[in-house]
Amino acid sequence: MTAPVYNRVALIGLGLIASSMFWAIKRGGLANEVTGYARSEATRETARRIGLCDEVCDSAADAVRDADLVVLCVPVGAMASVAADIAPHLKPGATVSDVGSVKRAVIDAVGPHLPETVHFIPAHPLAGTEHSGPESGFAELFDNRFTLLVPVDGTEPAATSQLRALWEGMGANVEEMDADHHDLVLAVTSHAPHLIAYTMVGVADDLRRVTDSEVIKYSAAGFRDFTRIAASDPTMWRDVFLNNKEATLEILGRFTEELFALQRAIRTGDGDQLFDYFTHTRAIRRGIIEAGQDTAAPDFGRSGKKT
Amino acid sequence: MTAPVYNRVALIGLGLIASSMFWAIKRGGLANEVTGYARSEATRETARRIGLCDEVCDSAADAVRDADLVVLCVPVGAMASVAADIAPHLKPGATVSDVGSVKRAVIDAVGPHLPETVHFIPAHPLAGTEHSGPESGFAELFDNRFTLLVPVDGTEPAATSQLRALWEGMGANVEEMDADHHDLVLAVTSHAPHLIAYTMVGVADDLRRVTDSEVIKYSAAGFRDFTRIAASDPTMWRDVFLNNKEATLEILGRFTEELFALQRAIRTGDGDQLFDYFTHTRAIRRGIIEAGQDTAAPDFGRSGKKT
Repeated sequence: MTAPVYNRVALIGLGLIASSMFWAIKRGGLANEVTGYARSEATRETARRIGLCDEVCDSAADAVRDADLVVLCVPVGAMASVAADIAPHLKPGATVSDVGSVKRAVIDAVGPHLPETVHFIPAHPLAGTEHSGPESGFAELFDNRFTLLVPVDGTEPAATSQLRALWEGMGANVEEMDADHHDLVLAVTSHAPHLIAYTMVGVADDLRRVTDSEVIKYSAAGFRDFTRIAASDPTMWRDVFLNNKEATLEILGRFTEELFALQRAIRTGDGDQLFDYFTHTRAIRRGIIEAGQDTAAPDFGRSGKKT
Repeated sequence: MTAPVYNRVALIGLGLIASSMFWAIKRGGLANEVTGYARSEATRETARRIGLCDEVCDSAADAVRDADLVVLCVPVGAMASVAADIAPHLKPGATVSDVGSVKRAVIDAVGPHLPETVHFIPAHPLAGTEHSGPESGFAELFDNRFTLLVPVDGTEPAATSQLRALWEGMGANVEEMDADHHDLVLAVTSHAPHLIAYTMVGVADDLRRVTDSEVIKYSAAGFRDFTRIAASDPTMWRDVFLNNKEATLEILGRFTEELFALQRAIRTGDGDQLFDYFTHTRAIRRGIIEAGQDTAAPDFGRSGKKT
């Protein structure tokens, strides 16, 4: 067992990411003590029942007291008020981080509340499932997935290195990125695809000539994969779209432009254009498999993860 | 071992579906002999090398001679010419079927070529992976998936029952459906989602400020699932869209309408509308899991299938 990276870690918000962090921290012996807090009493009770966190506190202030690392694991829209709550109770020299899916908005929301005596290093683990809540976490969630650190100007390199060591200890591949670039990359790879999946699932449900039960019964691979994406946490995704508005709308604009071109090819019967397009996208998939972000196996290489 | 359903089955076209049918027929002892034909000599050689089909013939005419069931497993756009090729060689009383993803166009393309002495029963197994070719098949592909039979007017019920028995023997749940309704249901659950996935993957690749390697490295769940869908066989999908034009374009029209409404909610910051929409789509996902078409497990319940 290697030495712990932090003495005391506080997890604020106890959903999929925080609960997975707890189990991954325990797996790696990465902290001596992990405290937790959730706004909902029911969540705190569940956490206590399943042994999530060494101590579940009844206030965020109690949870962060004496913590060397505080990780905000709440929806992006709740970050500002949580930061304001905990700010007076932070230990000087502590690091404050988060796991939000957008970074510029989090920096704007959290940064102004924090005292000068703490390090603020936003982060974003690119990992998740369609499940949420304190019971959905598992230690392997971050294994071989990327976690992006987005240090703000003037952050001490030693503090960043320490946070990097924690994420690497939890199994992640860590990279650093500028906040605005992060938000654009994620708009392409995650935010726009999620909105599109939500929309397609909504359309299917809205059609009157195809019954719900038919859509459900005959949901072949295409639609079924969309429904999985579209089952993700509504609060989290509402906040993502409201807080990465410009980049998401830009990508969606490009998407509809491209979709109209393909619709036109269908309407005019331009088989060559369709064939070329589909051949090209197939090659992109091969690139992803070669980059090790997925496997060629039909189960996405997910076997062995929590079921 | 139950008695074989057919004495001799001919598979025309030896891709993912035909090769999976062969292994599933062998697994169930559903035919005494299975012949196969593929237009490409390389495919025929591969089939012979891996033992796909009891006999791989060098012409479609040879393959269908004396066959009690002939299954056209070629792209929809190739159905008409294959039907014309085999028509003079079909055994009287034989059943001709297919596995195409659209049904009205296949009926129009194949029907006129067939002699009155054969039964024509179009079919569509709702199963697939993003892989293609003679080596991609596996016996379990159809297990617990739906296969839709689309008998044309005047088909003998006994012939339909026999084909149903074959598909049930291959593990499928079999239902009958009218051709036009089939094409609409599939436009919703499969065809439109595939075009959307192709488009999103194309857009991501087309952006200049996000490098290819970034898109590939950071392709979180949302985009990665899209790339899997968008890696499906280009020829097959070109033909699907060209042959289910009206229904696909109608669904895409509804999709863009709905997408514009959500884009507007993002632009105006209407969090309530987004939250309500996402909550609703999450419920649809639950319906699919309850209907047994998927599992709640992160691996989609696919473990144990061919890797």
